[in-house]
Amino acid sequence: MKIQLLLTGNELMSGHTVDSNSAMIAQQLSAKAYSIARKVTVGDDKADLLAEMQQQSKAADILIVNGGLGPTIDDLTAEILSELTGQAIEENAIAKQHIIDWCERRKLIVNAANLKQAMLPTGVEIIPNPVGSAVGFSINHNDCLIICTPGVPNELRPMMEQTIVELICQRFPNNEQLSTLRFQTFGIGESTLQQMVGDKLTDWPEEVELGFRAGMPLLEIKLTIRKAEHANLQQQCYQRLSALMGHCIVGPESTNLAEAVVQLLQQQHAQLSTAESCTGGLIASAITEIAGASAVFEAGYVTYSNDMKQDMLGVDSATLEQHGAVSEPVVIAMAHGAMERSGAGYGIAVSGVAGPDGGSDDKPVGTVWMAWGSKAQLHTRKLVLKASRKGFQQMVTAITLDLTRRELLGIEAEPRYLSRYSQ
Amino acid sequence: MKIQLLLTGNELMSGHTVDSNSAMIAQQLSAKAYSIARKVTVGDDKADLLAEMQQQSKAADILIVNGGLGPTIDDLTAEILSELTGQAIEENAIAKQHIIDWCERRKLIVNAANLKQAMLPTGVEIIPNPVGSAVGFSINHNDCLIICTPGVPNELRPMMEQTIVELICQRFPNNEQLSTLRFQTFGIGESTLQQMVGDKLTDWPEEVELGFRAGMPLLEIKLTIRKAEHANLQQQCYQRLSALMGHCIVGPESTNLAEAVVQLLQQQHAQLSTAESCTGGLIASAITEIAGASAVFEAGYVTYSNDMKQDMLGVDSATLEQHGAVSEPVVIAMAHGAMERSGAGYGIAVSGVAGPDGGSDDKPVGTVWMAWGSKAQLHTRKLVLKASRKGFQQMVTAITLDLTRRELLGIEAEPRYLSRYSQ
Repeated sequence: MKIQLLLTGNELMSGHTVDSNSAMIAQQLSAKAYSIARKVTVGDDKADLLAEMQQQSKAADILIVNGGLGPTIDDLTAEILSELTGQAIEENAIAKQHIIDWCERRKLIVNAANLKQAMLPTGVEIIPNPVGSAVGFSINHNDCLIICTPGVPNELRPMMEQTIVELICQRFPNNEQLSTLRFQTFGIGESTLQQMVGDKLTDWPEEVELGFRAGMPLLEIKLTIRKAEHANLQQQCYQRLSALMGHCIVGPESTNLAEAVVQLLQQQHAQLSTAESCTGGLIASAITEIAGASAVFEAGYVTYSNDMKQDMLGVDSATLEQHGAVSEPVVIAMAHGAMERSGAGYGIAVSGVAGPDGGSDDKPVGTVWMAWGSKAQLHTRKLVLKASRKGFQQMVTAITLDLTRRELLGIEAEPRYLSRYSQ
Repeated sequence: MKIQLLLTGNELMSGHTVDSNSAMIAQQLSAKAYSIARKVTVGDDKADLLAEMQQQSKAADILIVNGGLGPTIDDLTAEILSELTGQAIEENAIAKQHIIDWCERRKLIVNAANLKQAMLPTGVEIIPNPVGSAVGFSINHNDCLIICTPGVPNELRPMMEQTIVELICQRFPNNEQLSTLRFQTFGIGESTLQQMVGDKLTDWPEEVELGFRAGMPLLEIKLTIRKAEHANLQQQCYQRLSALMGHCIVGPESTNLAEAVVQLLQQQHAQLSTAESCTGGLIASAITEIAGASAVFEAGYVTYSNDMKQDMLGVDSATLEQHGAVSEPVVIAMAHGAMERSGAGYGIAVSGVAGPDGGSDDKPVGTVWMAWGSKAQLHTRKLVLKASRKGFQQMVTAITLDLTRRELLGIEAEPRYLSRYSQ
């Protein structure tokens, strides 16, 4: 069984858009043990698209076409599919109703551009779009199931999850039962981990495939088996990895650092407060992105200037003058100020030089002082993180959340990144 | 003249790697008015690769092959090119010297895996690699210039910049001078804009190509010309679009909403402070992501609980009790509190129900009260935004930043999204 992908869009050819859709499609299919054999990308040109669809529908059992479903004149998929299959374009009642409902919910007047998206070849099967105005659709041609999907990633994803993967499973049932145990780690690299497994887990069973996906800032680890009877082996592998590097495990599935911290605080009926200078609210926003954060987070202080460090957190002006804003005494005072004023038991405080300007010989761009922990046990550290302004802010956020996670778990081992980035 | 791209790598097919190389190649070529007609991606399979190279070298004038130059057994490009062209594999002296020098600089011993990268088809032209150990190379076949490049992005980029673009320019001199005028808009959709141009700018010149790129939350508009002599037409088109929807223009090139706000505040020597409940610091972090934000932003208040709205911003407890936290009087008091306590002339305050829990009949999930403006002129509005928790927080952030931008510019026309999301 052969699956091919046809991506269309001038923006994909011009380099203005990086294609992330095909990776997402491949990942969703691979979870069901399907793989993509070939993908072709062309611009919004009618002759090119027609030739590709003709040729690919002959070569493949399933052809997923991505893009070209929108309301503008660039969007050619339906028209070309009509030409390819000889099915006339007609107004599709299901697609039209979807557009009317979609506009109504947004208090928009249905216009001609919207309605163009209901003009589809006769005989297509509609694929619901829970997010956008353009439905997807499928049709058989040349013994190939052609599935047409929208190019907008946040529309495509739920359509894959809710309909398209299932459609493919029904059409080409797959006897393999891929089962993946996924978890997130922080503070360990892919090559280090691979070396660790090679050195210390020499009898790793070949039934359990070890995979990685490097995200920012987490590294996802995947243990995949192809038969249900190997579930025990999979669990054993997880236990052995945990024993080796369990303190780097943030959580199962897609758990991120803020989520792990919020869950631990909930379990311990504790609260956290943040005092941020160089991260400017990014730590607070990472925490409050998590549903249920309100139980563990009441207040965040974004104190960008020295005056505000004094007014909002009670940092002593003499401390600021003597040591400068990027210093250990200042982050200690910020953390205590945040905990006292909010009543939280735990605190995070950061002050650093995000750049691109503002560095000195003594405190170059990338320098950050961090404080984390509780009133009784507050830790501090200075790191130097070389990155863009945004990258620096993201790294400081990830590191302080991870250090707080370790503190809440009572992990004593020091993470390797602290020594790596110390100067 | 037709340029095609052949990308190879199992990691590109499995979805583990998102291909950013082809966008980078396209951008570098488009700066010289070359475009890529088609790209094909396949895994590291010898038969597939040979068939693709055979077919594509017949169809194209230039074929750029990306990936498969490394030291492992998966790296098949040289071997396949030898089979395709009938040129025997031999040790290439230039490539070998490069590998020896490369290892020496890194104090590495030259091993067999490294030396595999010097085994190339007879008669290739070497393309220097200033970063990595594998050189690139080119060869003519089927009247097509085949250019083989490494898959590692930070090796490919300098090779494109230093050698490959020049190689293509020499082979196929180009008289066109593509020039694109790009700008960002907020609060207008692609279909509305297309309709507007169709209705009101009926004599749009065909020399100026109108293009769009939908980002989150901005819509990029591009006006592209192919000859320098059409620069006037391009400017005229920009002026006419500005006259129609200028208040939706955030800024040129990649300007985002926070950047526009920070620039306006800098120009007006003004400061802004934020008081955030439901966005939890996201507005502050968007502003402080911009270099130079410290001149216009001193303090942000993340007041997630009622107690903290009182303590940090001086919101009256009676107001909170009478109207609830998600109410007009509360966001007014929050905004005034933030401006007074920070000394900023402008303020943003938001309080809403981000969900998934916490909604009521009266104030369903997605409800948000926003206040923005100055002490003298503070505006308020209630919206209902249906989205995920994260999507809600991002929309509230984008909308309050845009409303602040409009306020700083003195734009009186009300943006359409305010009525669309009002209830």
